[in-house]
Amino acid sequence: MMVETPYLLFIGDAKDQLSIKLAQGVADWKPELAVGEWRMPGCTVSTGIPETGLLQGVEKGAKTLVLGFTNSGGVIDQQWVPDILAALNHGLDVASGLHQKLDSIPIIKETAERLGRKLIDVRHPQQSFDTGKGIKRTGKRLLTVGTDCSVGKMYTALAIEKCMQAQGFDVSFKATGQCGIFIAGEGVAIDCVVADFISGAVEQLSPNNQDSHWDIVEGQGSLYHPSFAGVSLGLIHGAQPDVLVVCHAAEREHMRGVPDYPLPSVRQTIDINLQHASLTNPNVKCAGVAINTSMLNETDAHALCQKYQAELNMPCVDPLRHGVEAIVKLL
Amino acid sequence: MMVETPYLLFIGDAKDQLSIKLAQGVADWKPELAVGEWRMPGCTVSTGIPETGLLQGVEKGAKTLVLGFTNSGGVIDQQWVPDILAALNHGLDVASGLHQKLDSIPIIKETAERLGRKLIDVRHPQQSFDTGKGIKRTGKRLLTVGTDCSVGKMYTALAIEKCMQAQGFDVSFKATGQCGIFIAGEGVAIDCVVADFISGAVEQLSPNNQDSHWDIVEGQGSLYHPSFAGVSLGLIHGAQPDVLVVCHAAEREHMRGVPDYPLPSVRQTIDINLQHASLTNPNVKCAGVAINTSMLNETDAHALCQKYQAELNMPCVDPLRHGVEAIVKLL
Repeated sequence: MMVETPYLLFIGDAKDQLSIKLAQGVADWKPELAVGEWRMPGCTVSTGIPETGLLQGVEKGAKTLVLGFTNSGGVIDQQWVPDILAALNHGLDVASGLHQKLDSIPIIKETAERLGRKLIDVRHPQQSFDTGKGIKRTGKRLLTVGTDCSVGKMYTALAIEKCMQAQGFDVSFKATGQCGIFIAGEGVAIDCVVADFISGAVEQLSPNNQDSHWDIVEGQGSLYHPSFAGVSLGLIHGAQPDVLVVCHAAEREHMRGVPDYPLPSVRQTIDINLQHASLTNPNVKCAGVAINTSMLNETDAHALCQKYQAELNMPCVDPLRHGVEAIVKLL
Repeated sequence: MMVETPYLLFIGDAKDQLSIKLAQGVADWKPELAVGEWRMPGCTVSTGIPETGLLQGVEKGAKTLVLGFTNSGGVIDQQWVPDILAALNHGLDVASGLHQKLDSIPIIKETAERLGRKLIDVRHPQQSFDTGKGIKRTGKRLLTVGTDCSVGKMYTALAIEKCMQAQGFDVSFKATGQCGIFIAGEGVAIDCVVADFISGAVEQLSPNNQDSHWDIVEGQGSLYHPSFAGVSLGLIHGAQPDVLVVCHAAEREHMRGVPDYPLPSVRQTIDINLQHASLTNPNVKCAGVAINTSMLNETDAHALCQKYQAELNMPCVDPLRHGVEAIVKLL
């Protein structure tokens, strides 16, 4: 799944910073991929990159209008349709990470077909995959895994990629979710693949490479999540990671979306992930723990990471606060 | 996914007994669902149920022509098309467990649309599912799991259903694969569901029920299979089994389709499945082991089951040779 860059990031009339998570991810990690952010009247939030109208965006060379939303229902708001049509009319493709397909709205479908523009729904992979083969591949791979969903697996992977790049490693971020795909410009929304092909799709996403090359593979879900553990396990087997980094969010009280399920400990999460990862890579190791401490003050965040570090005897950091050098040093 | 019965089982010009596994499953377990088997000239195999031509099948009340094949490519043979069209013209729906969709052949699609017949591709689920909720459901559930793919999980589940029925239990077989779906007349091909919805689809397949009711859920794959373990894990979490039965095939040398992967031991398989199943049902237990000993003589088969029984301290039987009473006695 490839999306042509640069993007014009569309955030509509959004009033909730969380609802534009996709646009925010691009703005935080790869602002150079976007010519600007296009807002409708009434929009009260911003990703922080320069505001740009449609015509100005086209002038700056934008190739794709990216719907910057990850709303919970995954639906395309009728209010956005005129702007989507305008973008098609001005020569842009349109890409979305929402569940509802762009071509499910007849006028969008007809306009795109008439003008020969692409409609790209990254949550509806069009590629066909083979089933996983489990054959050892060349090159090195790091996979982020988690105690839960939404604990920072993508941000941790991107922070590691950035740090390794700065240190001169030959390294690529491999996206497995909709936000990551727009940041990387390509990838596979692995939870949208047919179940038979989970590990096969990851094998295809991270193929043979130079011995010194690292793929930093974005993890999904958690082996302890009763809704999504199957996705996590297939991803682990397909990634054949040499190295795991375990991600965790401080002060989370239960697994996301399922209040009856407590979080596993970080120790348990390390053990079960190593156990399963060793099926396709017997030499897998855990290089560290990334903790999202955004809800803690500086002192408490530092103390928490120190506590885990003492307990687990490996680097434990908040990637956004402390950087990931301590982890990258071990690679 | 429901298929209207009775079936007319179509086995075309098959010359390989293995290629008609789907028809054979129906003939072995639910022959009362089929009015007969329809063969083309040149066919050299049979399921053992009475041969019936199309007109005779229609007279006997057949509602659905079932393509009885599970060929490896999953394709519809051009040679079958005239007979498929004839069945549509004589008032039958057509159902298939192959990967290639029936409506991918234009003349089949047009004919079905014109006549108002249903084309049912059980490997392409049309239902939409919720993601798994992990909420404890009423009723009891038994799940068959395995050391590997194709070790007898469906046959074991069906043998257990039959034995429990004979003993007066309130019991239903719940199909999760294409063969099972035609035997049950309904079900979900769980490896064909989008990855996000594996456990949610199983929750829907086996909903709340009477406290004394048992669902016997057909397992898929193996937690040790590098291609399909994600499917197995999601299925385990969604099924919330009270009881596991572990299935194994004697003398298998490596995991199916992946020669570099040795089989796990039965003990390992029991442990890892109990570990994961306990996430959604902390009281899960293993009630026994079902061993496919078809490649052994009577004496060796008996000795092997005795050996496992002594080692594991639970009933170990070949369901087809020894029955499953020893396991059902524990429920």
